[in-house]
Amino acid sequence: MFSTSHPTKHSLKLSLMSNKLLALSLFLPFLLLFFCGCFASTFRQQPQENECQFQRLNALEPDNTVQSEAGTIETWNPKNDELRCAGVALSRCTIQRNGLRRPFYTNAPQEIYIQQGRGIFGMIFPGCGETYEEPQESEKGQGPRPQDRHQKVEHFKEGDIIAVPTGIPFWMYNDGQTPVVAITLIDTTNLDNQLDQIPRRFYLSGNQEQEFLQYQEKEGGQGQQQEGGNVLSGFDDEFLEEALSVNKEIVRNIKGKNDDREGGIVEVKGGLKVIIPPTMRPRHGREEEEEEEEEDERRGDRRRRHPHHHHHEEEEEEEEEWSHQVRRVRRPHRHHHHRKDRNGLEETLCTMKLRHNIGESTSPDAYNPQAGRFKTLTSIDFPILGWLGLAAEHGSIYKNALFVPYYNVNANSILYVLNGSAWFQVVDCSGNAVFNGELNEGQVLTIPQNYAAAIKSLSDNFRYVAFKTNDIPQIATLAGANSEISALPLEVVAHAFNLNRDQARQLKNNNPYKFLVPPPQSQLRAVA
Amino acid sequence: MFSTSHPTKHSLKLSLMSNKLLALSLFLPFLLLFFCGCFASTFRQQPQENECQFQRLNALEPDNTVQSEAGTIETWNPKNDELRCAGVALSRCTIQRNGLRRPFYTNAPQEIYIQQGRGIFGMIFPGCGETYEEPQESEKGQGPRPQDRHQKVEHFKEGDIIAVPTGIPFWMYNDGQTPVVAITLIDTTNLDNQLDQIPRRFYLSGNQEQEFLQYQEKEGGQGQQQEGGNVLSGFDDEFLEEALSVNKEIVRNIKGKNDDREGGIVEVKGGLKVIIPPTMRPRHGREEEEEEEEEDERRGDRRRRHPHHHHHEEEEEEEEEWSHQVRRVRRPHRHHHHRKDRNGLEETLCTMKLRHNIGESTSPDAYNPQAGRFKTLTSIDFPILGWLGLAAEHGSIYKNALFVPYYNVNANSILYVLNGSAWFQVVDCSGNAVFNGELNEGQVLTIPQNYAAAIKSLSDNFRYVAFKTNDIPQIATLAGANSEISALPLEVVAHAFNLNRDQARQLKNNNPYKFLVPPPQSQLRAVA
Amino acid sequence: MFSTSHPTKHSLKLSLMSNKLLALSLFLPFLLLFFCGCFASTFRQQPQENECQFQRLNALEPDNTVQSEAGTIETWNPKNDELRCAGVALSRCTIQRNGLRRPFYTNAPQEIYIQQGRGIFGMIFPGCGETYEEPQESEKGQGPRPQDRHQKVEHFKEGDIIAVPTGIPFWMYNDGQTPVVAITLIDTTNLDNQLDQIPRRFYLSGNQEQEFLQYQEKEGGQGQQQEGGNVLSGFDDEFLEEALSVNKEIVRNIKGKNDDREGGIVEVKGGLKVIIPPTMRPRHGREEEEEEEEEDERRGDRRRRHPHHHHHEEEEEEEEEWSHQVRRVRRPHRHHHHRKDRNGLEETLCTMKLRHNIGESTSPDAYNPQAGRFKTLTSIDFPILGWLGLAAEHGSIYKNALFVPYYNVNANSILYVLNGSAWFQVVDCSGNAVFNGELNEGQVLTIPQNYAAAIKSLSDNFRYVAFKTNDIPQIATLAGANSEISALPLEVVAHAFNLNRDQARQLKNNNPYKFLVPPPQSQLRAVA
Repeated sequence: MFSTSHPTKHSLKLSLMSNKLLALSLFLPFLLLFFCGCFASTFRQQPQENECQFQRLNALEPDNTVQSEAGTIETWNPKNDELRCAGVALSRCTIQRNGLRRPFYTNAPQEIYIQQGRGIFGMIFPGCGETYEEPQESEKGQGPRPQDRHQKVEHFKEGDIIAVPTGIPFWMYNDGQTPVVAITLIDTTNLDNQLDQIPRRFYLSGNQEQEFLQYQEKEGGQGQQQEGGNVLSGFDDEFLEEALSVNKEIVRNIKGKNDDREGGIVEVKGGLKVIIPPTMRPRHGREEEEEEEEEDERRGDRRRRHPHHHHHEEEEEEEEEWSHQVRRVRRPHRHHHHRKDRNGLEETLCTMKLRHNIGESTSPDAYNPQAGRFKTLTSIDFPILGWLGLAAEHGSIYKNALFVPYYNVNANSILYVLNGSAWFQVVDCSGNAVFNGELNEGQVLTIPQNYAAAIKSLSDNFRYVAFKTNDIPQIATLAGANSEISALPLEVVAHAFNLNRDQARQLKNNNPYKFLVPPPQSQLRAVA
Repeated sequence: MFSTSHPTKHSLKLSLMSNKLLALSLFLPFLLLFFCGCFASTFRQQPQENECQFQRLNALEPDNTVQSEAGTIETWNPKNDELRCAGVALSRCTIQRNGLRRPFYTNAPQEIYIQQGRGIFGMIFPGCGETYEEPQESEKGQGPRPQDRHQKVEHFKEGDIIAVPTGIPFWMYNDGQTPVVAITLIDTTNLDNQLDQIPRRFYLSGNQEQEFLQYQEKEGGQGQQQEGGNVLSGFDDEFLEEALSVNKEIVRNIKGKNDDREGGIVEVKGGLKVIIPPTMRPRHGREEEEEEEEEDERRGDRRRRHPHHHHHEEEEEEEEEWSHQVRRVRRPHRHHHHRKDRNGLEETLCTMKLRHNIGESTSPDAYNPQAGRFKTLTSIDFPILGWLGLAAEHGSIYKNALFVPYYNVNANSILYVLNGSAWFQVVDCSGNAVFNGELNEGQVLTIPQNYAAAIKSLSDNFRYVAFKTNDIPQIATLAGANSEISALPLEVVAHAFNLNRDQARQLKNNNPYKFLVPPPQSQLRAVA
Repeated sequence: MFSTSHPTKHSLKLSLMSNKLLALSLFLPFLLLFFCGCFASTFRQQPQENECQFQRLNALEPDNTVQSEAGTIETWNPKNDELRCAGVALSRCTIQRNGLRRPFYTNAPQEIYIQQGRGIFGMIFPGCGETYEEPQESEKGQGPRPQDRHQKVEHFKEGDIIAVPTGIPFWMYNDGQTPVVAITLIDTTNLDNQLDQIPRRFYLSGNQEQEFLQYQEKEGGQGQQQEGGNVLSGFDDEFLEEALSVNKEIVRNIKGKNDDREGGIVEVKGGLKVIIPPTMRPRHGREEEEEEEEEDERRGDRRRRHPHHHHHEEEEEEEEEWSHQVRRVRRPHRHHHHRKDRNGLEETLCTMKLRHNIGESTSPDAYNPQAGRFKTLTSIDFPILGWLGLAAEHGSIYKNALFVPYYNVNANSILYVLNGSAWFQVVDCSGNAVFNGELNEGQVLTIPQNYAAAIKSLSDNFRYVAFKTNDIPQIATLAGANSEISALPLEVVAHAFNLNRDQARQLKNNNPYKFLVPPPQSQLRAVA
């Protein structure tokens, strides 16, 4: 609907028109807070005493790298003042081609943003069915072994958010051509974590050290790190033989004793084979994310399907191709069945959507062809976030465009720069600039709740992802249309800000943009 | 319905009768807890370790005063043991005639009790419409400028509770003849506050220091307090010019640089003009709070309206006068429209009631003409409190009357004396009296959860407001009808309390009053 | 339905069949999480910083005993690392025959497990009716005194869990022939507790010290422990005379001054008389817990009642006997009335079930005649647990049988050994065995959230009760059918665990049992 090309009068007009519609869609989440029975919007512990009294904030980078056979895991120090105040931990995982991140679970909920690459992932929910299965051989055939079956496996791609609940094992695999880069936020102060705030990875296999261990205060010396580093390696050998009904050799392997492959990411030579339907490949020149939009359509918004008969036909064609592919790869019929008659309890958790795209290409919440765009993913569109108490925002801002001064009403924001650089200002309650500088690709800035912030892009395509510690986060702007200042009575503005009425009216009304302000040149150009 | 005059046999009888009806109305909130989906009754952090081990409690007074051009802001030290245990901060704001408290937001939810005076206030909810607006000039007229529009503005008066959510800007203005005195509780340990427990005021304008700053532990010396004290003053000048589309002079003013008016309360010479419907003035000798009751009536209770035809007519007359006034002051028609057809989402938050009266004159929950009265305001009557996790109680007790020994089942209570003095006793779990003394006007006593307390009034009209840290607070009495002792089996009382059966029966039954016990003389007088 | 006798082929087959049905029933609670509006599953504070970094866990025993006239109260030190991390306190109360535990309330919710004995208990809910009452004398008779009335009193027996909310007074009495032994967990970090984490008992009567007082850090010396130890003893004498309308002597007794009976448990010579319907006694050789199951049946599951006519008749007979008993003991008719027409608000809290049996004899969730059984009691079957945020599990494991390696997904587990001994292994996220040893009768082991654990019984009838800090706790197994490993794709298992495909298939499939694995001998015997 909106062009991403160079600014034109037409697109500017569209953008101004859309501004009016934007207000509702952007703030709807906030209004919906009130339908959640108990009004409970946060399930997080507060920081320790005085832990958020910053003299200044820092642009943070990872300070540790764990090498693996087929990738690396970099970690930010969770004892940094900013991350302690926000109560989160961060890591960045790079997985080489054919790399498998071994399954692990964590003592707190996580949001994973896929910065680059594509692949597949799985989570294991206790009690959910192993619904991806090979069809049984015909009775006459009587193959000597049962076919494999396992829980749901899904594709991921660049721009996806993957939500991982507390204690749920997760693995991922790079089946693409480029390395996968994934940024993970662990919400350690979430009340779902009943341990202390140390992030803990529990690996199901391998003998690698869990990546946040080095930040723990070692009490009483070195400890007894005899075995491998997985949750099974601490059990007695003979006990495991009995509990698993397997022989000594398998137990030795399970305990990681024979495993000389380094770290939590291992290489799968020849590629990993699992039961999974293939993704749709782009056809007819359409972008890949169309697939996602179509899925959205199926959930209720059928605007595009029926009015445009041509499109409808195109889809049927597509479905045929899909069926074909499915037959080739043995589409899991039980899963298919589930999708059709949603009448059981198992549906709710076991078929819950675990992945949602907020990358560049999906329909943004705010869009201005001269300034940029952003999109917030909340528990309204992605219900599992309601369980996690987290949300995410993806934005891109064009060179010299601004994000007006604003603050996060009900959340901390942990912002990671995906591309380019921008000038950030963050101001505390005393009016001090606790951050005033450049933020570059790969750096993290914590914007604490209620602190005022503003951004000016220094790159052609500055892009960021911001993790928010509330599943329905809310921002309030301090400049522009519909800002807090413009919603104050004129005379309150005049007297509070020490302005005459005319100045106050300028302050309320001069900036017509809501969030993103194009650079002055492009505004001129557009009008000219 | 109840007379407030001197005790008579009649009114005593009424009061005894009403006692029976009272039980349900008072405890209903507790029962309703169970309809709230998740049973979640508190959204608050616990105090730090050992922070509630009091040898004694103290009657607390403000220890700091910030002077302003048109008023003062006094603060209680939030590091007092009692306030730390309760997890709250307190302040008292006095606003002179025509004084405007500049808009600010706070990192935690607040309850404000209006001890004295009247005025108007506003809050800015992001995403809600600017629904108070001047009618547009006729198209032919073509006035050179658009008229003002802004978000809802409301009147307040003595006895009101105003509820302010986390991060929502709030301002207030004294449009009456006497100073406004407002007591504010900030619930800093509320989970809506994701920062630490320091209360933080974020002023939108001015160059005053925020009032709780002096309690912060300054780490590393003085800090870089260069600019003014508002959230915009830390931003770069040229950036603000661009973001706000205003000139250098306006930016200077916004940043508080030219503002030599002292503090957060400024004088509005000639009075503040905003778009607001006028309040109803008392007529026919009725008290002002009738207005409030009428509003309650409109919400469903129409008992008084229809049975009494005379009254009905009177109301029609009133409505006419109202319409007249509205026309004079340009009643906002959009808002009016909203009130009529409540069918949109926007209604819930944007039209939410932000103010509720619990002062002397409204219908109390418990009433005894010889002893006094009290009223608890919970999230059931005032739904926004469900968001805040707070409630409030207003009481008045006559000289020598008692509030029987009781405890707060599920909340801390922070009690502020509005008028007169009373003898308070508070007992801990070891049976020690941690408070046993007089509490006077302007003093604050924290009654921790589950600690037993009792009150004896020493003044003709002892009055208090108690802030409670649960939106459906519950008290349990240890004496009187329906007390915990009277609900125990007779033989359990006898054996547990070391009494014979006759003594146990006396303990269970002798005191016929539920909460408020008249002084012995008045009981005699009433019976005589 | 299942035989508890020696293993036979038949029962083994049944057990294997039932395994398939088990998965749903066991994991259903987890799925239901999603129907709770806000997804809030825990209402508990996190431990302080670094409080869960165990080098090793310890089997804990009580370290203090408070002697009473008719029993003892033993306490575990709540400052043990394990209990601090889990945020709970534990005590064990032994009540001799005819012993009455005096009424007290606590600043946090509690779960009580009845390890031995039988008796009656009561709780006082403010605002609920005194619904157990003697019928009034006929108007002509005009007895000189009103009969007694009090709130609901209930029976308890071995295997019961009793749930006590924060601030609700509770008493219990041993009306059986053997001592009552009750294990109490206090969830001090529950957000319902707004004080610090010190467990506090508030006794309504007596002059005993509350049992957790000795663990408090005494600041500033000895304190002013002048009076008795109950919540009324700290009030002024004359004030109490007035507030309770009783004489000096009664006040002295109430304050515990004349009470030379030791401790919180007093002897009731001749037995305690309260108004209560009698329990059903076992007849026709059926076990007592049938009563409980019948009650369950009345709530909807009528399978057994109607198909079996014989049984139906038997029940009618029983009901007659019941009616007879009721008449003898004056069955409270008001309460009866309440049970019939559940249409009022008062029903919800005032008639809420406060007790539920999970002992040996009730229908377990998992059962294997060669290995054992266990049952989890959640808020789905016992709704008050939803308020408390707690659950409980009861298990018994036969000699040499295993509980496979597993972990608690969303709760801490505080396990108390009721009978026998077992070998426990607990493994942390680094793969270290933080516990590897025997746990004996009367000992407590804390299994922190997400730590892997496994059990091998060393006794013919090892039995335990585990308190869980989540009202819908969830476990995940690391071995056996439907384990997390068996739900992974075969190739993920192979590459992650460093196994070839055949070994991976063995690891996924070899153990056919879900939770409880019979000892190898009995497996052979059953098959032979």
